Amino acid sequence: MPRPTGRHFLQIPGPTNVPERILRAMAQSTIDHRGPEFVELWNDVRAGLARIIGTKGGVVLYPGSGTGAWEAALSNTLNPGDRVLMCDTGHFAAKWLEMASQIGLQPEVIEVEWGNGADPEAIEAKLKEDENHKIKAVCIVHNETSTGVASRLKEVRDAIDTSRHPALYMVDTISSLASIPYHQDDLGVDVTVGCSQKGLMLPPGFGFNGISDKALDAAKSARKARSYWEWTAMIQAAKSGSFSYTPPTNLLYGLREAVSMLEEEGMDNVFARHDRHAEATRRCVRHWDLELVCRNPEEYSSSLTAVWLPQGHDADEFRKVVLERFNMSLGNGLGQLAGRVFRIGHLGDFNDLMLAGTLSGVEMGLAIAGVPFNKGGVQVALDYLAGNA
Amino acid sequence: MPRPTGRHFLQIPGPTNVPERILRAMAQSTIDHRGPEFVELWNDVRAGLARIIGTKGGVVLYPGSGTGAWEAALSNTLNPGDRVLMCDTGHFAAKWLEMASQIGLQPEVIEVEWGNGADPEAIEAKLKEDENHKIKAVCIVHNETSTGVASRLKEVRDAIDTSRHPALYMVDTISSLASIPYHQDDLGVDVTVGCSQKGLMLPPGFGFNGISDKALDAAKSARKARSYWEWTAMIQAAKSGSFSYTPPTNLLYGLREAVSMLEEEGMDNVFARHDRHAEATRRCVRHWDLELVCRNPEEYSSSLTAVWLPQGHDADEFRKVVLERFNMSLGNGLGQLAGRVFRIGHLGDFNDLMLAGTLSGVEMGLAIAGVPFNKGGVQVALDYLAGNA
Amino acid sequence: MPRPTGRHFLQIPGPTNVPERILRAMAQSTIDHRGPEFVELWNDVRAGLARIIGTKGGVVLYPGSGTGAWEAALSNTLNPGDRVLMCDTGHFAAKWLEMASQIGLQPEVIEVEWGNGADPEAIEAKLKEDENHKIKAVCIVHNETSTGVASRLKEVRDAIDTSRHPALYMVDTISSLASIPYHQDDLGVDVTVGCSQKGLMLPPGFGFNGISDKALDAAKSARKARSYWEWTAMIQAAKSGSFSYTPPTNLLYGLREAVSMLEEEGMDNVFARHDRHAEATRRCVRHWDLELVCRNPEEYSSSLTAVWLPQGHDADEFRKVVLERFNMSLGNGLGQLAGRVFRIGHLGDFNDLMLAGTLSGVEMGLAIAGVPFNKGGVQVALDYLAGNA
Amino acid sequence: MPRPTGRHFLQIPGPTNVPERILRAMAQSTIDHRGPEFVELWNDVRAGLARIIGTKGGVVLYPGSGTGAWEAALSNTLNPGDRVLMCDTGHFAAKWLEMASQIGLQPEVIEVEWGNGADPEAIEAKLKEDENHKIKAVCIVHNETSTGVASRLKEVRDAIDTSRHPALYMVDTISSLASIPYHQDDLGVDVTVGCSQKGLMLPPGFGFNGISDKALDAAKSARKARSYWEWTAMIQAAKSGSFSYTPPTNLLYGLREAVSMLEEEGMDNVFARHDRHAEATRRCVRHWDLELVCRNPEEYSSSLTAVWLPQGHDADEFRKVVLERFNMSLGNGLGQLAGRVFRIGHLGDFNDLMLAGTLSGVEMGLAIAGVPFNKGGVQVALDYLAGNA
Repeated sequence: MPRPTGRHFLQIPGPTNVPERILRAMAQSTIDHRGPEFVELWNDVRAGLARIIGTKGGVVLYPGSGTGAWEAALSNTLNPGDRVLMCDTGHFAAKWLEMASQIGLQPEVIEVEWGNGADPEAIEAKLKEDENHKIKAVCIVHNETSTGVASRLKEVRDAIDTSRHPALYMVDTISSLASIPYHQDDLGVDVTVGCSQKGLMLPPGFGFNGISDKALDAAKSARKARSYWEWTAMIQAAKSGSFSYTPPTNLLYGLREAVSMLEEEGMDNVFARHDRHAEATRRCVRHWDLELVCRNPEEYSSSLTAVWLPQGHDADEFRKVVLERFNMSLGNGLGQLAGRVFRIGHLGDFNDLMLAGTLSGVEMGLAIAGVPFNKGGVQVALDYLAGNA
Repeated sequence: MPRPTGRHFLQIPGPTNVPERILRAMAQSTIDHRGPEFVELWNDVRAGLARIIGTKGGVVLYPGSGTGAWEAALSNTLNPGDRVLMCDTGHFAAKWLEMASQIGLQPEVIEVEWGNGADPEAIEAKLKEDENHKIKAVCIVHNETSTGVASRLKEVRDAIDTSRHPALYMVDTISSLASIPYHQDDLGVDVTVGCSQKGLMLPPGFGFNGISDKALDAAKSARKARSYWEWTAMIQAAKSGSFSYTPPTNLLYGLREAVSMLEEEGMDNVFARHDRHAEATRRCVRHWDLELVCRNPEEYSSSLTAVWLPQGHDADEFRKVVLERFNMSLGNGLGQLAGRVFRIGHLGDFNDLMLAGTLSGVEMGLAIAGVPFNKGGVQVALDYLAGNA
Repeated sequence: MPRPTGRHFLQIPGPTNVPERILRAMAQSTIDHRGPEFVELWNDVRAGLARIIGTKGGVVLYPGSGTGAWEAALSNTLNPGDRVLMCDTGHFAAKWLEMASQIGLQPEVIEVEWGNGADPEAIEAKLKEDENHKIKAVCIVHNETSTGVASRLKEVRDAIDTSRHPALYMVDTISSLASIPYHQDDLGVDVTVGCSQKGLMLPPGFGFNGISDKALDAAKSARKARSYWEWTAMIQAAKSGSFSYTPPTNLLYGLREAVSMLEEEGMDNVFARHDRHAEATRRCVRHWDLELVCRNPEEYSSSLTAVWLPQGHDADEFRKVVLERFNMSLGNGLGQLAGRVFRIGHLGDFNDLMLAGTLSGVEMGLAIAGVPFNKGGVQVALDYLAGNA
Repeated sequence: MPRPTGRHFLQIPGPTNVPERILRAMAQSTIDHRGPEFVELWNDVRAGLARIIGTKGGVVLYPGSGTGAWEAALSNTLNPGDRVLMCDTGHFAAKWLEMASQIGLQPEVIEVEWGNGADPEAIEAKLKEDENHKIKAVCIVHNETSTGVASRLKEVRDAIDTSRHPALYMVDTISSLASIPYHQDDLGVDVTVGCSQKGLMLPPGFGFNGISDKALDAAKSARKARSYWEWTAMIQAAKSGSFSYTPPTNLLYGLREAVSMLEEEGMDNVFARHDRHAEATRRCVRHWDLELVCRNPEEYSSSLTAVWLPQGHDADEFRKVVLERFNMSLGNGLGQLAGRVFRIGHLGDFNDLMLAGTLSGVEMGLAIAGVPFNKGGVQVALDYLAGNA
């Protein structure tokens, strides 16, 4: 097989295609993280990230990953044995849940058939039942990256409010932030969990939390042992523009550039673009006569689309064909979806022709892999894109 | 209009999409062009370029452009007033012809309707007529970038041989080299003219000549005043791994990488890839019911496809729509084709999905610009690509 | 004040001057961390890092920092309430000690006057006293970055052996690895703690552990709650060339390059170079008649040199002069040394002329800041470097 | 010999150390040179370059080198057989002179002992003699890169004026522009010749001309055959923001950045910085008891310092020692100075500590190469730099 040529299509739902502006920004020489130039960088970046998150509260950023930011959220606010309400909406929700157990919390799980989002009614019921307020937090994955389902955060907020429950509201925005509308303060979220390599268009390497005053108060009394993830030291250090340990300087260069790019485009345009690409993708998939993993149109994800392969066809074999023949990476099925589902990422730095190339690669791959499908999906997507461009 | 997002599709027929390997190679610090490290670089690069050109003869490289390499070819071998036989196959052939006049040569022109390649029969006739051998060179543009027509170099060589004419054979391979099969020595070409920004996948910035012994002999007696373009000093300097003036060091880094990339892929694979993308493009264009500029299937270019817009439609307006809506640059009509033709570059570092995106952008652009066409060309291209991938 | 020109001298003891080879390696596009190309990268990098650490045991790498790798070392092997023996040799030893407390361990502290290394005799005495083996680990900072003191690891190992104590031996090699000789297996170290931004010449962004079989056994029974830092999942994932969460792909590109650079130079040459630059620096400092923080010649650090300013002179004011006038960052005094000490980093990608520039900047800065000193230190360093180059 | 480590010191008098800002700017993807984004780039760059040159006249830029810009200057304005007055002030003046002959002009040479600048009195005398105004141009190398001598341009202008001679005044600013004060219009220069890789801090790859109205008028009647270098087509194309052939796009990205960097610093600061570094270098050289090539303090170059080695010592051997032991490239002796002279470049993106490193490398190299010299030159330079920083 000859060397792959041309640009790789990285159409997994993150890491996303890092734009060259960001790669170049990150290629700047590392500076003294205790010098005046760093202070300016870090202050800029923190303010920018707060705007993206939509909060006037604190922002804490860790060299790490989204997984680390999950742990930070839980370990700063909760005590060993605390109950946390979680919805098993997919592979990543399940991983967060597993983490909660590992670090000594007691997850209360609402089972959800994968393909659906968090269930606001069930949440409300659970919270109402919990008269003694043993549940200390409600933890929701905004956009479940394994299924392409976006939970209805506002309805979950309403459920908490209606049940007059004091639980903290924590949201994983890992694959939604800067792709799907989100505003921590407007949604009354207490802890936002995010990371670098999705809508922010950066390579992987940092995770972060947006933190409400209520969460910060909880942190004061939380006895859970923690050191690396400790918010207080970070927030204290940030006041003087510094970090409690060595910061990921070059990623911060990239983040500064990412915030600029997003704001040059305008966040509303960013969201509209993601919506449009997701809709084009779904129309294409429907025309192929393949089934979406996401069941509820209200919960369609604008970041990615997860698709079932027909029974008897191996999604990983199909993805291998696409990689080898068309130099494109698609997302695999995770957990119970392994081998049965593939995922198309259409988030981050993306445009119509990249999407056209992506869908073309899927359509040709289906043909070559011998998966039965209805030809012409790309054409349907193009019709949609041309009509609404 | 919001900021364009995603990767720009640079689908003009050169400069082509520079692969990041080359951009990064070129971002290395400049070195002393008189030091030992440069000697190694320059020797490597010269040998690699000779392999790509297909010659055991000399190779001279100039900071400059393809235009400069045209001038070098003419001014090193010819004397003021010399007659040169040229075919007016398109805009670039016409420019080379204009240059020949400007620098004091007498071009003998074979008129060709644009859309056709150089006419071997007419060349043979002209050479036979020229019993006194006043014609000193036959100058052919291998791949005419303005029309997407590849002249039949072997037939031209045969025409020269049949007419037993001693004229030098000069070939502009600017948009063919490393895209369309070419081998200077096998074709009996005396001077090859090429540059960086097409099949070599580099940014613009240098031109070069491959030089046969016969051409070198001609250079010894050529009295045409020249300094910058002088071969002899260059060839002399190259013997010690140096340059007669300051070389374009960073582009040489890129060229070393380009040669590696091409040879990793294998030149036969490179050519087959270009053929395949060109064929897919033509099938798409035919399905759209648009007309190719190239008339003769034997002369189809594998580097680019030039396409007529129907009467009454402005190709530049159409290209503007494509640029603004789809972040893609297409080639414009040049010379007599201005406003009536657009050109799709499919050369350089390219792959199936980039082509799918490219053709999708054209198809959507036609729809939006109100150009009448038959929908479904992209689908036809995909069918071809999937069947032959 | 005009814009600073030329190359910044980043002479803090880490992050170090990242060589352009590494910056360019890191500027490659991010790839699918679940695809075959990643497997190859990650296997390469892990093997390379194991060679640098000097271990045939496991290597676990985290998106994070050295601080995170400290926490990983402690939390994977120990149980809440476990006693750990630590020496307060400087600011970073003190921070590790503080972390041990924060996460629920009981540090047993051997006080050391800063400027000295870990005291093998005191360690031996403590371990002998601990007849019931309540001490579960001996934790040593190899090179204390705040004082420029390299502890004698072999003597500490001997102390543990002599006292026949089963405690794990953990070593922080953050500012020693790839600068000062270190070999985990030969030294009988159980857990190595390291990170990216010092001798490995990378930007900050990951930490890692080298892990002996004994440490791995301890991890099986350690009940300390952990998730992000959990070794087992990491080691399990690594068997198939994957990661338990999203890896810091672009830093791994850089690490691959770093390992190549170090091995091209040869580790013995790397160490000899650091020794030589450190010796030149100390001769220079002595000529200036300034005092080294490190008291014991056997414990001189080859990574950095920490220097006392005379009483009444503010080290931070001096560093500010150097930064503003000479575009060089020096390390500050930390903890009890704040304002009284400055630190010269001479580790990582460095050479004689960079050192000459560095020492020149210090000498000129001393003059301008009005610090009393004996002129001519740079000359002394040059004499040494020229004599031994 | 182990791999060289750390940053290479590129202390030849051009190419200079390219700052990473420029390398990164140049690593941007190439764009369509016929699209709207290019128009903006090219207009910006042309305006910026005109400010650096100090002209309200035309600016023409060529993919090429300074050598090419020499040819452009001569071939656009002069006719075959025209006499040009030139001063043989060094290797590069001699090369320009040689070129003038090669392309059919008749150079009138004023011999100057190398180490001196152009002689305004001799020029005045020659011009006064030339009552029939057969001399069409006076051509001066502003800063002779082979000797480190800066000719007195104002005095030459005065000489032309005093003699009331209509000759064009052409100046090679290749190694002076953006390092030594120069203002085309104020000096009454008709053609400025420059290139990318010196004070403009770019890699090599383009040359340019600044053109007065008088020169443009001369171009209209000049019959010298030319095509690539033709000003008119270039100037015409520039009016619509385009180029008459493919432009060196990525170098233009770099030039835009270079102009920004210079103007952020402030041109007066740029010049003062070069003066200061040159003065420090000369004091150092004098202390070493080595002889400067430049004889006249009024003609000292602020770009570079050329130094004689004592009789019996081979400058190239010395430079080899410096390269191999200290990873620094110094300029060689050229022409009649070969093997006897070395040159220290201190132009471009440079600072005090880079200079200290540079001079340290020379001083240590002298010692190792066994060249007799008086130790302590670096110290003298540091004293000067600290006193005047």
